Amino acid sequence: MHLEKPVAVVGAGLVGAGWAIAFARAGLTVRVYDANPGTSEQALPWAAQQLAALHTHGLLSESPQVVASRLVLAGSLSEAVDGAAYVQESVLERLDVKRKLMEDLDAIASPALIIGSSSSGIPASAFATNLRISPRVLIAHPVNPPYLVPVVELVPSPQTSGQAVEFVDRLMVAIGQSVVHVRKEIEGFVLNRLQAALLREAWALHRDGVASCEDIDKTVRDGLGWRWSFMGPFETIDLNAPGGVADYANRLGSLYYSIAKSRVNDGPWDAELIARIEVDRRQHLSTDDLAARRNWRDERLMEFASGKLTAVKE
Amino acid sequence: MHLEKPVAVVGAGLVGAGWAIAFARAGLTVRVYDANPGTSEQALPWAAQQLAALHTHGLLSESPQVVASRLVLAGSLSEAVDGAAYVQESVLERLDVKRKLMEDLDAIASPALIIGSSSSGIPASAFATNLRISPRVLIAHPVNPPYLVPVVELVPSPQTSGQAVEFVDRLMVAIGQSVVHVRKEIEGFVLNRLQAALLREAWALHRDGVASCEDIDKTVRDGLGWRWSFMGPFETIDLNAPGGVADYANRLGSLYYSIAKSRVNDGPWDAELIARIEVDRRQHLSTDDLAARRNWRDERLMEFASGKLTAVKE
Repeated sequence: MHLEKPVAVVGAGLVGAGWAIAFARAGLTVRVYDANPGTSEQALPWAAQQLAALHTHGLLSESPQVVASRLVLAGSLSEAVDGAAYVQESVLERLDVKRKLMEDLDAIASPALIIGSSSSGIPASAFATNLRISPRVLIAHPVNPPYLVPVVELVPSPQTSGQAVEFVDRLMVAIGQSVVHVRKEIEGFVLNRLQAALLREAWALHRDGVASCEDIDKTVRDGLGWRWSFMGPFETIDLNAPGGVADYANRLGSLYYSIAKSRVNDGPWDAELIARIEVDRRQHLSTDDLAARRNWRDERLMEFASGKLTAVKE
Repeated sequence: MHLEKPVAVVGAGLVGAGWAIAFARAGLTVRVYDANPGTSEQALPWAAQQLAALHTHGLLSESPQVVASRLVLAGSLSEAVDGAAYVQESVLERLDVKRKLMEDLDAIASPALIIGSSSSGIPASAFATNLRISPRVLIAHPVNPPYLVPVVELVPSPQTSGQAVEFVDRLMVAIGQSVVHVRKEIEGFVLNRLQAALLREAWALHRDGVASCEDIDKTVRDGLGWRWSFMGPFETIDLNAPGGVADYANRLGSLYYSIAKSRVNDGPWDAELIARIEVDRRQHLSTDDLAARRNWRDERLMEFASGKLTAVKE
């Protein structure tokens, strides 16, 4: 895909500014707009910092300054989208805020403009239907930050056209993202549903006194997470039985069903359980150290990304 | 921990021979015994091959030959355990086979011998109770291969002594494993319960036409799996809300509960669903290519291990 036209990022908080980096790094001009002038002003200096860090980790093929020069602050929504091929909507995760933006875009969008929403949970049919632009709106849900963790979930609404999905698929692949097609709108999409399932079991094991937070984390980071970080769950089990995935299911399906049945009557995480998990975590990381540990995480993600990028492709 | 005495590996299939490598690499003399002479004969040449590969990836501090010289074939169970400090039981995952071995060990074990079982699902209370050795038997469940993926789950039975758990904890830490304490016997222990929960959701998403195997794998390997491979699920969410894990739970708990409730009426994986998943996987990897892809996986695990070992420790 060769994209001559600029793209627009609307909503310039952490998610939007992160997207701006991902687009600019791939050579695209990015119009950055936020209804809150304070947020807009912070976005470009923050992006410059992140670009410098990416450069340090060998994750930029150009100088940080060259990439940063492709980021342009827009003074209004019209200025942001005028002549743009694509809008990445990254405003507040609130139905009324997203609906209002869609109505505003509907009033000014050119007939070819495609709009992807960073919504992490609200489906497009809840805020983007019955407008002129509806066939050209879909969810493009990233992991934060999108310039480090490549996955993006594309989730069309029933009114989204196949061409719009295909356009965003090609755009995302062109900038180096890993595209997942979610074929039906479903609460939590795929990524957060998988995370929810694992977290649910983790919280229940802690509640029942089976293991501590730290021991559950170890089980994943020193065990399960290794294979998942380069194969995913299906390929992992496909290689874990002599005859592949069906062989695996025939051997272990009854164990997994039995485990699943043991959790059907669990209620929500209540205040008492939340308090216990909080106490357990704070023994490993004090509240004062949360921010420093987030920086540590981002450094590790950069190392991980540079390892992934240099690893021999399958 | 300074261990002068040898350890014994009983059952020398892939799991047992893998354990032998993990112990020998740490400097311990390892007696290797299998009731099937054919299995015993293959174990040492196989271990020598793996040691050469570990050396190639910078994962041995000594020559492969020096490490291999610590592996000694034993001609009988008595010869294997005579004077040993520890037995790692890795025989067939079958109740009658494990119980018979425990009775045999009970007849010959010195009063100080500690026994860890590689059982991946059967708890020690099902096969190791009401014997003289019962206070000294617990589960020490590895991921395969244990010399690459460090996690080991320690699961005492109600009859296991605290001293036995402490001994195996120190032994495992001394050889470089990452110890997880499972404080109550529970089906699947912690690792397979977490895997079961995620797989359950993955299979359901495929069944309902939401995403393909490949797209679900991408969601994990290009998204969720990155943070999990160095932090685990609790630390991930602890850093994903400004106020830490309790803040996260208060923001997202209702979403996760709603997702959990949507799966309570799922049945077992039936033949039709297994066949569909098999067809999907075989489009990405033919049956003929499974073996080659397993070698690719093991190479990636070695790269991953060497990255983990060289990474700056937290």
